[in-house]
Amino acid sequence: MADPLPLSSVRDLKAADAPSGRAFASLLVLRRAALKTASNGNPYLVVELGDRSGSFSCTVFSDSPAFEAMRAAGEGAVVRVEGKSESYQGRFSPKLSKASVIPPGELTSPEALANLVETAPEDAELLWRDLNAFIEGISNPELRAAVRNVMDEVGDAFRTSPAATHVHHAYRHGLLEHTVHMARAAKALLPLYTEVDPDLAMAGVILHDVGKTAEYEGTFAAKRGRRGILHGHVVLGYQLVRKGALKARLDPERTERLEHIILSHQGKLEWGAAALAATPEAVFVSMVDNLDAKMGTVQRALRNGSEADEFTEKLLGLDGQVLLLNPLPGRPAGP
Amino acid sequence: MADPLPLSSVRDLKAADAPSGRAFASLLVLRRAALKTASNGNPYLVVELGDRSGSFSCTVFSDSPAFEAMRAAGEGAVVRVEGKSESYQGRFSPKLSKASVIPPGELTSPEALANLVETAPEDAELLWRDLNAFIEGISNPELRAAVRNVMDEVGDAFRTSPAATHVHHAYRHGLLEHTVHMARAAKALLPLYTEVDPDLAMAGVILHDVGKTAEYEGTFAAKRGRRGILHGHVVLGYQLVRKGALKARLDPERTERLEHIILSHQGKLEWGAAALAATPEAVFVSMVDNLDAKMGTVQRALRNGSEADEFTEKLLGLDGQVLLLNPLPGRPAGP
Amino acid sequence: MADPLPLSSVRDLKAADAPSGRAFASLLVLRRAALKTASNGNPYLVVELGDRSGSFSCTVFSDSPAFEAMRAAGEGAVVRVEGKSESYQGRFSPKLSKASVIPPGELTSPEALANLVETAPEDAELLWRDLNAFIEGISNPELRAAVRNVMDEVGDAFRTSPAATHVHHAYRHGLLEHTVHMARAAKALLPLYTEVDPDLAMAGVILHDVGKTAEYEGTFAAKRGRRGILHGHVVLGYQLVRKGALKARLDPERTERLEHIILSHQGKLEWGAAALAATPEAVFVSMVDNLDAKMGTVQRALRNGSEADEFTEKLLGLDGQVLLLNPLPGRPAGP
Amino acid sequence: MADPLPLSSVRDLKAADAPSGRAFASLLVLRRAALKTASNGNPYLVVELGDRSGSFSCTVFSDSPAFEAMRAAGEGAVVRVEGKSESYQGRFSPKLSKASVIPPGELTSPEALANLVETAPEDAELLWRDLNAFIEGISNPELRAAVRNVMDEVGDAFRTSPAATHVHHAYRHGLLEHTVHMARAAKALLPLYTEVDPDLAMAGVILHDVGKTAEYEGTFAAKRGRRGILHGHVVLGYQLVRKGALKARLDPERTERLEHIILSHQGKLEWGAAALAATPEAVFVSMVDNLDAKMGTVQRALRNGSEADEFTEKLLGLDGQVLLLNPLPGRPAGP
Amino acid sequence: MADPLPLSSVRDLKAADAPSGRAFASLLVLRRAALKTASNGNPYLVVELGDRSGSFSCTVFSDSPAFEAMRAAGEGAVVRVEGKSESYQGRFSPKLSKASVIPPGELTSPEALANLVETAPEDAELLWRDLNAFIEGISNPELRAAVRNVMDEVGDAFRTSPAATHVHHAYRHGLLEHTVHMARAAKALLPLYTEVDPDLAMAGVILHDVGKTAEYEGTFAAKRGRRGILHGHVVLGYQLVRKGALKARLDPERTERLEHIILSHQGKLEWGAAALAATPEAVFVSMVDNLDAKMGTVQRALRNGSEADEFTEKLLGLDGQVLLLNPLPGRPAGP
Amino acid sequence: MADPLPLSSVRDLKAADAPSGRAFASLLVLRRAALKTASNGNPYLVVELGDRSGSFSCTVFSDSPAFEAMRAAGEGAVVRVEGKSESYQGRFSPKLSKASVIPPGELTSPEALANLVETAPEDAELLWRDLNAFIEGISNPELRAAVRNVMDEVGDAFRTSPAATHVHHAYRHGLLEHTVHMARAAKALLPLYTEVDPDLAMAGVILHDVGKTAEYEGTFAAKRGRRGILHGHVVLGYQLVRKGALKARLDPERTERLEHIILSHQGKLEWGAAALAATPEAVFVSMVDNLDAKMGTVQRALRNGSEADEFTEKLLGLDGQVLLLNPLPGRPAGP
Repeated sequence: MADPLPLSSVRDLKAADAPSGRAFASLLVLRRAALKTASNGNPYLVVELGDRSGSFSCTVFSDSPAFEAMRAAGEGAVVRVEGKSESYQGRFSPKLSKASVIPPGELTSPEALANLVETAPEDAELLWRDLNAFIEGISNPELRAAVRNVMDEVGDAFRTSPAATHVHHAYRHGLLEHTVHMARAAKALLPLYTEVDPDLAMAGVILHDVGKTAEYEGTFAAKRGRRGILHGHVVLGYQLVRKGALKARLDPERTERLEHIILSHQGKLEWGAAALAATPEAVFVSMVDNLDAKMGTVQRALRNGSEADEFTEKLLGLDGQVLLLNPLPGRPAGP
Repeated sequence: MADPLPLSSVRDLKAADAPSGRAFASLLVLRRAALKTASNGNPYLVVELGDRSGSFSCTVFSDSPAFEAMRAAGEGAVVRVEGKSESYQGRFSPKLSKASVIPPGELTSPEALANLVETAPEDAELLWRDLNAFIEGISNPELRAAVRNVMDEVGDAFRTSPAATHVHHAYRHGLLEHTVHMARAAKALLPLYTEVDPDLAMAGVILHDVGKTAEYEGTFAAKRGRRGILHGHVVLGYQLVRKGALKARLDPERTERLEHIILSHQGKLEWGAAALAATPEAVFVSMVDNLDAKMGTVQRALRNGSEADEFTEKLLGLDGQVLLLNPLPGRPAGP
Repeated sequence: MADPLPLSSVRDLKAADAPSGRAFASLLVLRRAALKTASNGNPYLVVELGDRSGSFSCTVFSDSPAFEAMRAAGEGAVVRVEGKSESYQGRFSPKLSKASVIPPGELTSPEALANLVETAPEDAELLWRDLNAFIEGISNPELRAAVRNVMDEVGDAFRTSPAATHVHHAYRHGLLEHTVHMARAAKALLPLYTEVDPDLAMAGVILHDVGKTAEYEGTFAAKRGRRGILHGHVVLGYQLVRKGALKARLDPERTERLEHIILSHQGKLEWGAAALAATPEAVFVSMVDNLDAKMGTVQRALRNGSEADEFTEKLLGLDGQVLLLNPLPGRPAGP
Repeated sequence: MADPLPLSSVRDLKAADAPSGRAFASLLVLRRAALKTASNGNPYLVVELGDRSGSFSCTVFSDSPAFEAMRAAGEGAVVRVEGKSESYQGRFSPKLSKASVIPPGELTSPEALANLVETAPEDAELLWRDLNAFIEGISNPELRAAVRNVMDEVGDAFRTSPAATHVHHAYRHGLLEHTVHMARAAKALLPLYTEVDPDLAMAGVILHDVGKTAEYEGTFAAKRGRRGILHGHVVLGYQLVRKGALKARLDPERTERLEHIILSHQGKLEWGAAALAATPEAVFVSMVDNLDAKMGTVQRALRNGSEADEFTEKLLGLDGQVLLLNPLPGRPAGP
Repeated sequence: MADPLPLSSVRDLKAADAPSGRAFASLLVLRRAALKTASNGNPYLVVELGDRSGSFSCTVFSDSPAFEAMRAAGEGAVVRVEGKSESYQGRFSPKLSKASVIPPGELTSPEALANLVETAPEDAELLWRDLNAFIEGISNPELRAAVRNVMDEVGDAFRTSPAATHVHHAYRHGLLEHTVHMARAAKALLPLYTEVDPDLAMAGVILHDVGKTAEYEGTFAAKRGRRGILHGHVVLGYQLVRKGALKARLDPERTERLEHIILSHQGKLEWGAAALAATPEAVFVSMVDNLDAKMGTVQRALRNGSEADEFTEKLLGLDGQVLLLNPLPGRPAGP
Repeated sequence: MADPLPLSSVRDLKAADAPSGRAFASLLVLRRAALKTASNGNPYLVVELGDRSGSFSCTVFSDSPAFEAMRAAGEGAVVRVEGKSESYQGRFSPKLSKASVIPPGELTSPEALANLVETAPEDAELLWRDLNAFIEGISNPELRAAVRNVMDEVGDAFRTSPAATHVHHAYRHGLLEHTVHMARAAKALLPLYTEVDPDLAMAGVILHDVGKTAEYEGTFAAKRGRRGILHGHVVLGYQLVRKGALKARLDPERTERLEHIILSHQGKLEWGAAALAATPEAVFVSMVDNLDAKMGTVQRALRNGSEADEFTEKLLGLDGQVLLLNPLPGRPAGP
């Protein structure tokens, strides 16, 4: 196409003043695709497509030029679509005329990604470097090797996973960001709580949520997958850590205490903990996790809050609303 | 008496091999005294006396030489008693022959105090100096003055109060210790959570539990007093903070947000919060409070744990037991 | 316009047989207004407008003759609008051609008000006179003065506030009505519970919810405002009562017990009480509050119930449904 | 015996200065009796005996002159015992030398009864007369007859039953007292809540707890009996009311609504309600029940409170403590 | 019309590719009908119509040829409607041109019924025969007669009632199916739990939910009716069982224990039990009920699950999702 | 001693008519031993000793001939002690003169064991044979091998472990008994729930609690050991099952589903489940577990109930009491 359409976001497409029947192009994540059969026997797809700014559902009939590409694309794929704005029963529901899957490798620009999914505001590269420095700072060599082994096993998933499907750090790189934030907080606090073994606590912080790399499915559409539902991230993480520790020949005492941190970090049984924190390190990691999760919820709410509102809506995970105020006038530059 | 009896602790008096009928002397806190009338019309006292190692009840009849002194001493007074070991219905219940109240000012030696009540392990003088340094570190002058005003108002009670009647920091100087520990943790964490105003957060940390100075009664026998039951420490603290802020002419915005920290620091309504944390500072203070309370429970359990046990009993406030292990062999000296 | 359009209610506008494109005029409350920026850089408003019979949202672009008036009107203002019926994406969403704010003073007719917001069925003037008679009936002069002081402080807000945002007495004058109903019930019950001090109980009844005058914002659009979220009506009321009592030089015993009624009237910590009722008066007031709140929910349900239904929907605050029956045939005229 | 021993209460027998080995006589309730077999094959009884002031356990061997009388007496019988003060393993455990059952008819003096069990402070005869006046006040003749029928069916049990095993009105005549107190409160409140049918509400008040006459066993030792455990007082009361209503040929509408009051008066399913209150009368009765139960708990606590204490212990059913203060100085004589 | 329209299901009518304005005919249940008055004073009906595949609401004005038939039909009636597809504000909302009620007796074909409401997958005739065989298997003749009496009393309602409004066995014949499934499970388990009386347990199983025949209203539109709301199925069933047992002159011991099974089978007070299971039979029946209810939820989810999904949605009553997998490959044919 | 003392049970020693100062011999479990230091610097032991009929504490000083043997015996050891009956402060607290540990191998007679600890009433040998028959009945060879592998790994512990520390099957062989009872129930029920894979369900039943062999410590003194506290039996069992399945080369689908049964069998997160049951097999196993646990509580209560009582005490795990009645008269011999 000589002059391609500029890419529109879902918010653009749904805007109150957007005319119906206008041609558009968008880069979107295929969040959900269900193959159905019409009463005439023909197959059709009901797909949910979205980007960071919103989502919509539409129907793709088998005679649409977009049908085959959509059918072949798995949930979580990134697709470039073209079509015409339309609404069906009052909701935006365009007619698609073209669809092509964008292979993961071709999504190189951070801007494109940033439009597709909410992404941690801190630079992922710097977070990753920090994480590795924290690993290097573990002085016990077998423990350090155990952490390395787990990281090697889960690979890139640790960098891209969200830390949750809702609530705190529920965005691309969220797991990495939450983990590094906790590691920074732990490093700052460890000199104050000397009964906590700093090596074990730091290893526990780094690995506490590693099971989420296996719990969530899809690069762009975080939801709990089969293993997440059948095992849960706590047990998945425990299994990863056990394997990494055995391979590093970590002594049984540290192995057991590291596993215990993973099993207990959720704090309460009804929140998903498999055991109640019973070592200084486990209590410490679960408290730092709680602190950073709550503060992460606040940070995200302030970041996404509308200027027109004095308070956010009620926030899941805080039980309340948060005041959306700029820093106080006259407040000192830094602590 | 030319040669006074050495002072016995309650644990000594109750020891399995302690002979009955032996004369003893002890320095004890009068924990509870109830004046009753015998069927012959004579008054008698049922008193509970104790020190750090335990307590016992005994009856003091009106013809006992100890009766008048005991009657005059208020609950919470320190008394030097002499008597003879006896047991009544299988419980240690001595016959007291002498009692004299020790005025607060004469209890100068830290050792005597340390035997009477459990005391924070850190030196109170150093904690106090640290607290004042944290106050000095508040850069906004009115906010700093507001904190100073509150501290001047509550005076020495802040140094001696426990931070709780059970669970964490439930001992002499416990409030001071818990507050300073939180201030240290907050100082370490504030550079990491830049959306939190450090001045407000530090003022909130220092004052969050100040209502406990009015909630608890008795220097040596921490229980909730009348104001504690009718108002609760959250509202008592709010009132103190409001007064201190008005006196310091703190701007209304900071006053409201500081009050909000006090009202919300308990975290949940059912835990006694009057409001749900709705500012970054309030969420931060309530999380740091939670962290230090849990860690303080662990620290006290490790300190008081018996060498013969692998785990503590179930700890109120942790829902579980804590492993009583020494630091791991080969663990690095410091973080 | 020589011949002004008759005013239509929101229910009229949304009626199933209402034609699209028809011109209309309405008197409505501006419930919410958010200023946004379109992709072309122009500002536009998304407003929610409503009256007692319903509400709708619509968009007002910057070139609309209604834009400036809407922008200037604060949330909670009463506006007279004209426009044309339209629907956008299946919901009623008219195009407004005119808007003018009606100053509070000009809304004199009770009928106009009654159409705008749900209003207590009892005459506000009579309720107000009754309230004052109850205040006059307090025999202790300082206590009576304390109640007067608080009423003077909150002024007219006490007459117009709802008693809740949902559930019971959630309408204009609801606070006044609920308070007078409770005072009547208390007066009837006090001779039966002689351990309750009638003066303190009556003062407590009258003031128990006074903090709601500060908790809620907006005359016509009851929602919790900034002070309500950051302090809560319990603490706001406590503060008002404390001030009024100090000014009246009420003795400390009564002051403390009156404050305690305010702090404990919600009954349970998880329902927002700051203290548990611990005096006969506080238990009494919290029970009478509970009784009248539940009965008020029933009364409102019977009032608003449709004739076609045998039962109401499940009612928040009752956990259940209520039978919508007329009084039994043959039932005596009065008790 | 020429000169019988004066009767001692359990409190007297256990008093701190009571000498061991002294002969005594007491009038006591046999609260519990278990027949056991000693290792030598001989039977012996372990009995719990008590009066209003306390209780104790002791063993009665088969060669004791008290053995046969005790064996024959059922749990709940009143027995006159003689014996010698002794203690076994530190607890009061006398050797009994005589025992004789006092037939119910011979316990005519209210003083004797008052020493045996806690009794409602109001005169039972006056309460009973009031109850009958409330029944007479029901204007619908069939409804009045239905209430009468139920009262005739349960007979004297209604006058003596406690209203609970713990908490409020947990004493002889407690059910009668609680019911009359509720009827007085209902009569005072009904003119204020005109949507409540006064006849139905009053019948519901009078009968709401009638199932307790079948739930509890034993005149002097209130505990839930077999029917109480297997059916519960709500269903037992419902059954009694249904029978009484059928016999009185009460119309089906009123019968159903009266039954509904019984089934729903406990307020919440987890408190034992079989249905949620869904008529104005049912909501009203359940709220008046709640009010009088809480106030009854306060009244009993004030009555039984020790002068030496400022607050009661935590009270079951109030979740808190109650201030034990005399009426305020200068408070007016009556409402 | 010579050639009648084929009947369309609601799913057909709402299908994404269904054209607007098309004439249709459908056989539907009238789920809800509310008579309202338009602003011009004319009455109109808002009706909800549905079949197994879905439902919709539409307005029927008084000048519509369908108005009178609809007005006369009670909720729960089966109606044949004709009309034209239309949508109002984005939802399917047809204009009806004809309506006629189908008398219950004329709905003989199981297929027609199966389209109208979800129906138990097992054949009702066979289930009914099995149920009767289980009744015959009760060896105690009075107990068997008591069960028969109850069955005769409730008649056909036992065959058609659902077992719940949501969750498990919430469909036509669901009560019969759930009861027979429980009876089969009980028969299989009784030889293993010999402390359970098999006759009583089987009678309890058969009758445990019999009150639901009176709790639910409407053949096709299961919702709780007036008696269900005011009494609840537990008490309604207890009443039926009591009557049946009295008529069969069942001995009091068995009557009481049978009633207890009905009153306690819900397991917990907050789930609606009127008493806690306190006999081996009652514990057994409540556990078998729980087992079959949960398995019934799983069975229905597997039956209704879409092939395209790996997991169901979260299921009410299971707290979780269920894996929608076919049986494992290579799994043996039967147990 | 030529003529050894007959062995007395703890109940004998504590009997009301047991003389003080009598010599005795007993075979007891050392339930707890704590080494302490007297004020004179000498070590002493406080030990708790018990058998099935009860327990007592006593002090063993360092100069006692029993000191060294007691010091060497670990908690859970069986010891033969001799001593003299004495009581200290009203509790039985004998002076021990001899102690010798009985090696596990020498406790061959079932009677001796039966006196030491409560034991499953069914013969362990027969239960074990049944268990093996159920394993043999698993038709999938890899699944059968996986179950075998786990059984080989845990060895004899499976035969002796209790199934709980309190509540149901809380006695020697309790785990074996509970497992076999569940397997019998499962076998009876599987033909009725055909969507459940019988092989997987049976393997899940057999292994669901296998982690308890690692959770509990001590043959005779069941309490949660270190691994139990730090990991919990759910994760310990998961780990055992994973290892056994890997070794048997079980296909990944079955492995994952078998692991899921273990992780979810506790039913709810707050009861310790690590995942919510999401397969038909997992729902089935968790329901059968619940059924047999409740019935096991009933069975044990009936077994241990006193003849003199009509009802048991409230039973943990049932929330209520159980009627202690013999089977009904005239009840048929078997089902």
